[in-house]
Amino acid sequence: MNEELIIDLQSDAYFMQQALREARKAYAASEVPVGAVVVHEGKIIGRAWNQVESLKDATAHAEMLALTAAQQALGGWRLEKCTLYVTKEPCPMCAGAIVHCRPDRVVFGCGDPKAGAAGGWINLLDSNPPLNHRCDITSGVLGGESLELLQTFFREARKIKKLQNWGES
Amino acid sequence: MNEELIIDLQSDAYFMQQALREARKAYAASEVPVGAVVVHEGKIIGRAWNQVESLKDATAHAEMLALTAAQQALGGWRLEKCTLYVTKEPCPMCAGAIVHCRPDRVVFGCGDPKAGAAGGWINLLDSNPPLNHRCDITSGVLGGESLELLQTFFREARKIKKLQNWGES
Repeated sequence: MNEELIIDLQSDAYFMQQALREARKAYAASEVPVGAVVVHEGKIIGRAWNQVESLKDATAHAEMLALTAAQQALGGWRLEKCTLYVTKEPCPMCAGAIVHCRPDRVVFGCGDPKAGAAGGWINLLDSNPPLNHRCDITSGVLGGESLELLQTFFREARKIKKLQNWGES
Repeated sequence: MNEELIIDLQSDAYFMQQALREARKAYAASEVPVGAVVVHEGKIIGRAWNQVESLKDATAHAEMLALTAAQQALGGWRLEKCTLYVTKEPCPMCAGAIVHCRPDRVVFGCGDPKAGAAGGWINLLDSNPPLNHRCDITSGVLGGESLELLQTFFREARKIKKLQNWGES
């Protein structure tokens, strides 16, 4: 049996693939392609993609929606024994939300050196204190795929804008 | 006519009173008493109080709910020509959300030197860059009343906890 065919259903790579599936749904909906899942004891209890434009709500990032779904699934706001997987490093809003919800771990795909809040620009997930919770952070899981999806999206968006400008001129 | 009786319906103090009304609703619901309103061209278009326990959602801060309500009222996520009034300095999550929604101004009551993200601990509202929006900040509007409400809440909460511990011992 080819060992490469065995999928480890508990691995970070497996759950990040699930987050990437969400990100691709965002791409298909013309949203910035970021996806997230929340895992509790090996089971996905929340999944979401970025829906800022669809919901006309600038706070509707993938992480925020997945955290809210996970809280609903557990019937409370403490996400103990949970890991959040997200294809891109969380922004300050999402990192702040993560600290409030208290998952044990955060795993992300590509980093955001410009405005990331899990070590890229600042680190709100391990501020040690003043914020009252810290998370273990794992970065770079399927980072290449996550970044490529974002880059393709923005390249296409620029192309469409150029065509629109051409049509208007 | 007594000038003191004239209420300036466009003043920061007036709108902060409205935010304090929301905070008192939180207090009555046994929630940490923080309230917020969003004002667009002199009109309140979103109002909310902290509902973390009621909604079992740690992201349900007054600011988040008021921002979402305001976006719904305007039919889009850009809160241009808007001011957010909130009784306590925003946390990193809420400050990050404010930057995404882009109101012109943020006015808050009491500061939070420990974990505030509008200058108390860090300043996400005027990071100049990397974040892609900056807000004018006014602090200390009805700060005394806002702080007193929070202090009373936590004093009562400690008293109740002490009684519960006594009952269990």
